[in-house]
Amino acid sequence: MTHPVVDPVALTQALIRCPSVTPAEGGALALLDEVLSAAGFTVHRVTFSAPGTPDVQNLYARFGSDAPHLVFAGHTDVVPPGEIARWKHDPFGGVIDDGEVHGRGACDMKGGVACSVAAAIEFIAENPGFPGSIGFLITGDEEGPAINGTVKLLEWAHARGERFDHCILGEPTNPLALGDMIKIGRRGSLTGRLVVHGQQGHVAYPHLADNPIPGMLRLLGALIDEPLDAGTAHFAPSNLEVTTVDVGNPASNVIPAEARATFNIRFNDIWTPESLEAELRRRVGAAAGGALRYDLRFEPTNATAFVTEPGPFVAMTAAAIEAATGRRPTLSTTGGTSDARFIKDYCPVLEFGLVGQTMHQVDERAAVADIRRLTAIYKHVLASYFAPDGTSVAQP
Amino acid sequence: MTHPVVDPVALTQALIRCPSVTPAEGGALALLDEVLSAAGFTVHRVTFSAPGTPDVQNLYARFGSDAPHLVFAGHTDVVPPGEIARWKHDPFGGVIDDGEVHGRGACDMKGGVACSVAAAIEFIAENPGFPGSIGFLITGDEEGPAINGTVKLLEWAHARGERFDHCILGEPTNPLALGDMIKIGRRGSLTGRLVVHGQQGHVAYPHLADNPIPGMLRLLGALIDEPLDAGTAHFAPSNLEVTTVDVGNPASNVIPAEARATFNIRFNDIWTPESLEAELRRRVGAAAGGALRYDLRFEPTNATAFVTEPGPFVAMTAAAIEAATGRRPTLSTTGGTSDARFIKDYCPVLEFGLVGQTMHQVDERAAVADIRRLTAIYKHVLASYFAPDGTSVAQP
Repeated sequence: MTHPVVDPVALTQALIRCPSVTPAEGGALALLDEVLSAAGFTVHRVTFSAPGTPDVQNLYARFGSDAPHLVFAGHTDVVPPGEIARWKHDPFGGVIDDGEVHGRGACDMKGGVACSVAAAIEFIAENPGFPGSIGFLITGDEEGPAINGTVKLLEWAHARGERFDHCILGEPTNPLALGDMIKIGRRGSLTGRLVVHGQQGHVAYPHLADNPIPGMLRLLGALIDEPLDAGTAHFAPSNLEVTTVDVGNPASNVIPAEARATFNIRFNDIWTPESLEAELRRRVGAAAGGALRYDLRFEPTNATAFVTEPGPFVAMTAAAIEAATGRRPTLSTTGGTSDARFIKDYCPVLEFGLVGQTMHQVDERAAVADIRRLTAIYKHVLASYFAPDGTSVAQP
Repeated sequence: MTHPVVDPVALTQALIRCPSVTPAEGGALALLDEVLSAAGFTVHRVTFSAPGTPDVQNLYARFGSDAPHLVFAGHTDVVPPGEIARWKHDPFGGVIDDGEVHGRGACDMKGGVACSVAAAIEFIAENPGFPGSIGFLITGDEEGPAINGTVKLLEWAHARGERFDHCILGEPTNPLALGDMIKIGRRGSLTGRLVVHGQQGHVAYPHLADNPIPGMLRLLGALIDEPLDAGTAHFAPSNLEVTTVDVGNPASNVIPAEARATFNIRFNDIWTPESLEAELRRRVGAAAGGALRYDLRFEPTNATAFVTEPGPFVAMTAAAIEAATGRRPTLSTTGGTSDARFIKDYCPVLEFGLVGQTMHQVDERAAVADIRRLTAIYKHVLASYFAPDGTSVAQP
């Protein structure tokens, strides 16, 4: 079997040219299928469906059948480009300008996927007898509802007997420069919706009405006045934001019947969604004091807080990053959620990818030099991970 | 000159049959013109205009040219009937059913206008040489913007040299039964609009955003947490209601850029609109503490608090009410605003009319017996006011 070497910059450009705005596959998974199959991977393309959501294509690939199994995760779907006229270059052109690859997905995260694919293929070509397996879990539903994506792909793979020892998710984790930051966990996310009921009436006759707004102010105050916690070893303090308050009463001489609010908490590993919900219900209940009629509902969440405790796997990745960039990455749990929240149920996962500064924005782009260095970092990690000298984290 | 006697019930029915939903005259003022002219009144029909508002017809009538001048004020315009199918009888039919006149305006306040017109005509017929004048200030813009109505009619009359010594406004002041309540004043009304500015961002990165909602909660708390006052001799405590709070942010993962709220204060005679605005600005400013970006604006108001101090005029009216109903009316300043807020700048004004329980509702109606008793009360007031024995409040 021959192992063609894949250029990560060219692969990034080729992936950008696939218009894979969620939930469209856009040719991106077909391209990876072709590249990975040619390199000797066993590739599975699986489509998942659910009522009320679009069908989504996903890809699972594996080279080798032995443990340890290091899997790269990622997504080829992208957010919409927005107003195309505002882009310097075609968002689906993959144009290189002044040392940067331009286009939707350049950093989030077609570039990261291309680097991991190129690194794996190059590593396999250079280490034909390496002890273990390299896998790819690539979804087309990370930027969308995330229902027919990584969650189901993991279940599908697990049901087939696939086991993962460690995972690297190539999301753009670096705020400003390659090497800034490894994400070793993510906060959880919980959304609550509060409705306070009153009695409509005329402002001139408040005794005949019951204004729900003062009660809403009191309940929201109970949610935000006291910090939820002071943070933990790897996490900042949990944070609650009231995202909207709405009454929608256009008449300034009318006391409204109802007030509504939504809030979202990004919470650390002190809490589970259940324990956090209980604490928030306790706060609201105490503030209501039996004197308010209200409904408090929480949306189902699949985002629990998790951390991959720093150990040999994280240290090995950090060392590879430092070797390539001269930077010692911060180990962080900041930011939004990612598919790592699903992967962590199957194996330890860390996240490291390109610089995310332009993600989801007009003129999203990634430096050519960063794409080459990230490929080198991934290859370095593979070399350490499968090191025959017994230093690998993954060896028995 | 002959003085035809006018039946107040028939006149109420005839007025209800005039479809005078604001700003339509609907034939109501023409009918009063005809009736009052026939009784010897000098009648003026005046139409006022203003940019952005519909033209509105008004009526001013006077019998006699000497002082003292007792003027009845009122309006013939009505609020819309709403869903006509929900009415038991045609809202513009003036149907009598089970001892009640049904129709829009029955109590608010075509009935009251009819009673005062009938009482005045009957009094004049019986007291041809009474010392003084009786007037009518009838507008078609009480339920509307109130721009081309009583305010301008008063200015117009004053400019012509018309002077008023006392005024009775026949609004439906009785909550449940005729004789319940005289209104001797009204609270003022002031509406404020508050906008708190923040910085939009992602809930996962609160340090890059600035949520305006906590600031809005703080400023609204400063407005409502402390009472404005404890009330005065004739007034309940001033009352502030937050009528709406709106952010309109549909995304629970986005920190919004701005929060808006509206509030209305019904205030007593401790305050002027200016002093109240200053106090509210002080409260908000102190709560903001220089740390919030906000706009606080107040809508122009022509509703200042006022009271007609109880004295002979009020006592005379109360006595007439007690004689006809057996009830000693409460002297109140409760409820919404009325055109009395404009009249009080020209002469002492009190309000007494029919029972207001069905005003602005489906199946608005007034008891035939109440219409007859209110006519008797007004006639009794006229007799006392113009008493030749020197007991009148209005005599020099």
